[in-house]
Amino acid sequence: MEERLKKLQKLNFDLQNKDFLLTWEKSRAEIEAVLNTAVILKEMHKQNIACRIFDSGLAISIFKDNSTRTRLSYASAANSLGLAVQDLDETKSQVAHGETVRETANMISFMADVIGIRDDIFIGEGDKYQRQVAAAVDFGYQNGILDQRPAVINLQSDIDHPTQSLADLAKMCDKFGSIDNLKGKKVVMSWAYSPTYGKPLSVAQGTIGLLSRFGTQLVLAHPPGYDLLPEIIERASQQAQASGGSFQITNDMQAAFQDADIVCPKSWASFAVMQQRKTLLHNGDKAGLANLEQTCLQENAKYKDWECTSKLMKLTNKALYMHPLPADISGVNCEHGEVSKQVFEENLYDTYTQAGFKPFIIAAMIFLIKQNNPTSKLEELLNKKIQRLDTRRK
Amino acid sequence: MEERLKKLQKLNFDLQNKDFLLTWEKSRAEIEAVLNTAVILKEMHKQNIACRIFDSGLAISIFKDNSTRTRLSYASAANSLGLAVQDLDETKSQVAHGETVRETANMISFMADVIGIRDDIFIGEGDKYQRQVAAAVDFGYQNGILDQRPAVINLQSDIDHPTQSLADLAKMCDKFGSIDNLKGKKVVMSWAYSPTYGKPLSVAQGTIGLLSRFGTQLVLAHPPGYDLLPEIIERASQQAQASGGSFQITNDMQAAFQDADIVCPKSWASFAVMQQRKTLLHNGDKAGLANLEQTCLQENAKYKDWECTSKLMKLTNKALYMHPLPADISGVNCEHGEVSKQVFEENLYDTYTQAGFKPFIIAAMIFLIKQNNPTSKLEELLNKKIQRLDTRRK
Amino acid sequence: MEERLKKLQKLNFDLQNKDFLLTWEKSRAEIEAVLNTAVILKEMHKQNIACRIFDSGLAISIFKDNSTRTRLSYASAANSLGLAVQDLDETKSQVAHGETVRETANMISFMADVIGIRDDIFIGEGDKYQRQVAAAVDFGYQNGILDQRPAVINLQSDIDHPTQSLADLAKMCDKFGSIDNLKGKKVVMSWAYSPTYGKPLSVAQGTIGLLSRFGTQLVLAHPPGYDLLPEIIERASQQAQASGGSFQITNDMQAAFQDADIVCPKSWASFAVMQQRKTLLHNGDKAGLANLEQTCLQENAKYKDWECTSKLMKLTNKALYMHPLPADISGVNCEHGEVSKQVFEENLYDTYTQAGFKPFIIAAMIFLIKQNNPTSKLEELLNKKIQRLDTRRK
Repeated sequence: MEERLKKLQKLNFDLQNKDFLLTWEKSRAEIEAVLNTAVILKEMHKQNIACRIFDSGLAISIFKDNSTRTRLSYASAANSLGLAVQDLDETKSQVAHGETVRETANMISFMADVIGIRDDIFIGEGDKYQRQVAAAVDFGYQNGILDQRPAVINLQSDIDHPTQSLADLAKMCDKFGSIDNLKGKKVVMSWAYSPTYGKPLSVAQGTIGLLSRFGTQLVLAHPPGYDLLPEIIERASQQAQASGGSFQITNDMQAAFQDADIVCPKSWASFAVMQQRKTLLHNGDKAGLANLEQTCLQENAKYKDWECTSKLMKLTNKALYMHPLPADISGVNCEHGEVSKQVFEENLYDTYTQAGFKPFIIAAMIFLIKQNNPTSKLEELLNKKIQRLDTRRK
Repeated sequence: MEERLKKLQKLNFDLQNKDFLLTWEKSRAEIEAVLNTAVILKEMHKQNIACRIFDSGLAISIFKDNSTRTRLSYASAANSLGLAVQDLDETKSQVAHGETVRETANMISFMADVIGIRDDIFIGEGDKYQRQVAAAVDFGYQNGILDQRPAVINLQSDIDHPTQSLADLAKMCDKFGSIDNLKGKKVVMSWAYSPTYGKPLSVAQGTIGLLSRFGTQLVLAHPPGYDLLPEIIERASQQAQASGGSFQITNDMQAAFQDADIVCPKSWASFAVMQQRKTLLHNGDKAGLANLEQTCLQENAKYKDWECTSKLMKLTNKALYMHPLPADISGVNCEHGEVSKQVFEENLYDTYTQAGFKPFIIAAMIFLIKQNNPTSKLEELLNKKIQRLDTRRK
Repeated sequence: MEERLKKLQKLNFDLQNKDFLLTWEKSRAEIEAVLNTAVILKEMHKQNIACRIFDSGLAISIFKDNSTRTRLSYASAANSLGLAVQDLDETKSQVAHGETVRETANMISFMADVIGIRDDIFIGEGDKYQRQVAAAVDFGYQNGILDQRPAVINLQSDIDHPTQSLADLAKMCDKFGSIDNLKGKKVVMSWAYSPTYGKPLSVAQGTIGLLSRFGTQLVLAHPPGYDLLPEIIERASQQAQASGGSFQITNDMQAAFQDADIVCPKSWASFAVMQQRKTLLHNGDKAGLANLEQTCLQENAKYKDWECTSKLMKLTNKALYMHPLPADISGVNCEHGEVSKQVFEENLYDTYTQAGFKPFIIAAMIFLIKQNNPTSKLEELLNKKIQRLDTRRK
């Protein structure tokens, strides 16, 4: 941890009182600060050292989509720092148009320290909503309505899923030693077949939006039609070039896997489908949605061979297999899915520990947003060594 | 805060181990103690000074009606003092008749410090239920079943909504300087048109039940048929007289607004409708309820001109516009509603800060109920200055 | 409390880092350690002494069945030790077959300290599921996925309900002075009539599985067909013999009550019905379930005279009347039920205080599981005397 602290001290970052919405809005130093802090907090947890910085306080959560993993990760992170989670059940409130987002955002924020939002269902809306909430609490804080401004944290939007992509990055660094060591590595973000429909694009977008920044040989593989948001593709290209890496798009999963160092095969819906879905959902068109689902599943079914199998894995350079979980595992929870049982089982340690970084990534975000001198504060906590579970013998 | 502390020291109040059900059961000194403590706690929060008094403990909540604002306020208040909120989901328990209220109340109270209850749907029942819970924990405490007696706090009943009316009063005092300065002020509690139906009477009742005590020129305005509970009307009259103020009822919104210093235009259902609704709800008569809703909406629709417009506001003495939120805003979340967009927008700071007092009012109630010497305890907390968010540099 | 501490010091127990699934997997010393610790924690709560041992941490709860009492007890226990409760809503996750239990269990455990599970609906499944979760976190901990292994606590399974049976035992010890004093006492676990259907067998099984260990004259009374799991019957017989007591099964409630010292009359479904129900539920056979319910209620109705009345109570040796609550009380919440209103009312203090032990039993389990030297830690807490509600005057 001392080494990590030294790294932190050398980084020139400033996340204080900022929101965390998209990784590409953050500098490399800020990304590294989150990673290092997350690893320190994880090690503190392992060594039973308390990292509580709040005597009391609330972490509000707004989940517009079901969630187990992220919900638990957010709750774990908040709790470890001393915050209590209070969920805002959207079904019991009235967040609809501009005016009311402003109102709801202020009403929940009088004593809130963080607002975590998952809103990934509608293309063109999730990120927008998060920014509306951020603008609303800006308004409240600037106008003396709020005594303190809560930070908005993106727990998945239509554009990015930063707590996931940074957990993934933490896992890659753990495997390869450092961000610098990712330079030149072939990283494959690949679509994979799923018998379900409507999975958000933001995991894939988050991956290419982040991994393109570190000089990787980044490949995005998907069948025709399963495009991601054009602006993210454009961004990945530019970032890859700027970082001395490369970014390619292919419709050939096998070619993509060839000599790969890291593979992330995961299903998502096509951009076109997600846009149709948005219109249908907004119109409450159930028949249309049922139709779309059928069309989409039939379209998906053309690409059943986009499955991560041992045969495919053998083409790679003993690649790190990654998945944000839960995966559609062939022969386990579906007939045909994203990954064969054998590949999934062989890489269980890696996918599970990948998930294990997420609570600490979120805790690191909150820690860095809330501290004026986070490095010094971490050092203080490490010196104090207050036991999280107090088991001191008399 | 020192000034506020001095005021507290001079007040002769005793809220320790009491419930808080109706404001008019509390002395003026007790009301002032809540207000002053709330303002101190709010300022402590602003200055990042911890006000935690519980090392652990539970604040139980029972919401028989949906709630965002009050739920969050209660959670914020409890959390700031060190309590965790535990919701009792009525749908998963069996609170029905006398015996079982007694049982449920005791079963949830073994380690509970506070029980907050919203029960505003049925005329003649909410307050009664809260008193049954209070009697049940009395029984438990006196008979050695409970080692400590949790306090019951009214988060809205059929009769009163004290955490709202006291937040309103805090806002008024903030605007006019003190309770004493409210003497002689014209305060208007007015019905306003809403395209919805079945809004509780208790906000309006809470307002006239509280504001009539401070020498105000209090006016209740509503269309014919939108009466409030007769005993509250009677109480407001008596209190107005005793406090050197006045209390008038009118069916003329415009006359009411003339030269007003404070206006609170807000919709509520008529007493008669609420009583019919109670019978229909108890009988599970869905057709009857649908009928009643139509009748009620048609009745409401006769009074669409009961809208708080700029024209009306111009009649006032630059009145403070108040609303417990959310409001039905014409052209924003409904075609015609309680208030015009312009009036609502112009008074946003006031209604939002009005709402901002509620968490601290609730925290003040709990603080004063739980401390044997609250003034001295507040002083101690202010001297200790423990940071709520610990950001001390090394 | 000093006496209790001395008892603890003399006991040779080791619950550290263990799960708590079935009472009969624990030694007598371990049972006594839980009881003594629970009583100490209860007394500490009464005397306003904090027993917090966690600076932060999560207590996960998984309730596959509705719960008010156990949910509140678990929340109270967790909170008193410093843990926040995070509920895993099964309806929003995907716990289905082996692989996914392993995954979900690990995903919720990265920062979890305890996992409390109620899973009592299906014969042959609840205990199995709890062991799958335990095995999954073992796997995670041993493979470096989890930095700490959360403890699994049975909040009711198809087999046992240890937090209930130990709360019951605490009540019996409170009444009769000690476990040793239960030797020779006639304890009756009796079926009783209920107009409802499908009540779990595990309360009755928990009672005979625990009470048979202390030399009691244990009697299980039920109508023909209302058998319990054969292996529990077998275990109770063996334990009764080994402890110098006896265990008898009878179909005669009156004979059972004769000269009884403790009676626990409570309804449960028959083993056969529960097994049919399991199949029907799994198949989603609604018609079959409705049929079964009717058959079961008709079968129950044959035994309406299995009601705990004053007449029956007079046969006993002024027996302690026990019930885990809520009870079906004749003339109160049903026409005919498990107990007459008179008997229930006369024994209110006993059943309510019986329930009052449960939060402290759960807290004691967690305390003993998490401390390396719990006795010494308790002594330290008692010496420190930190006020739970801090009301120190300046």
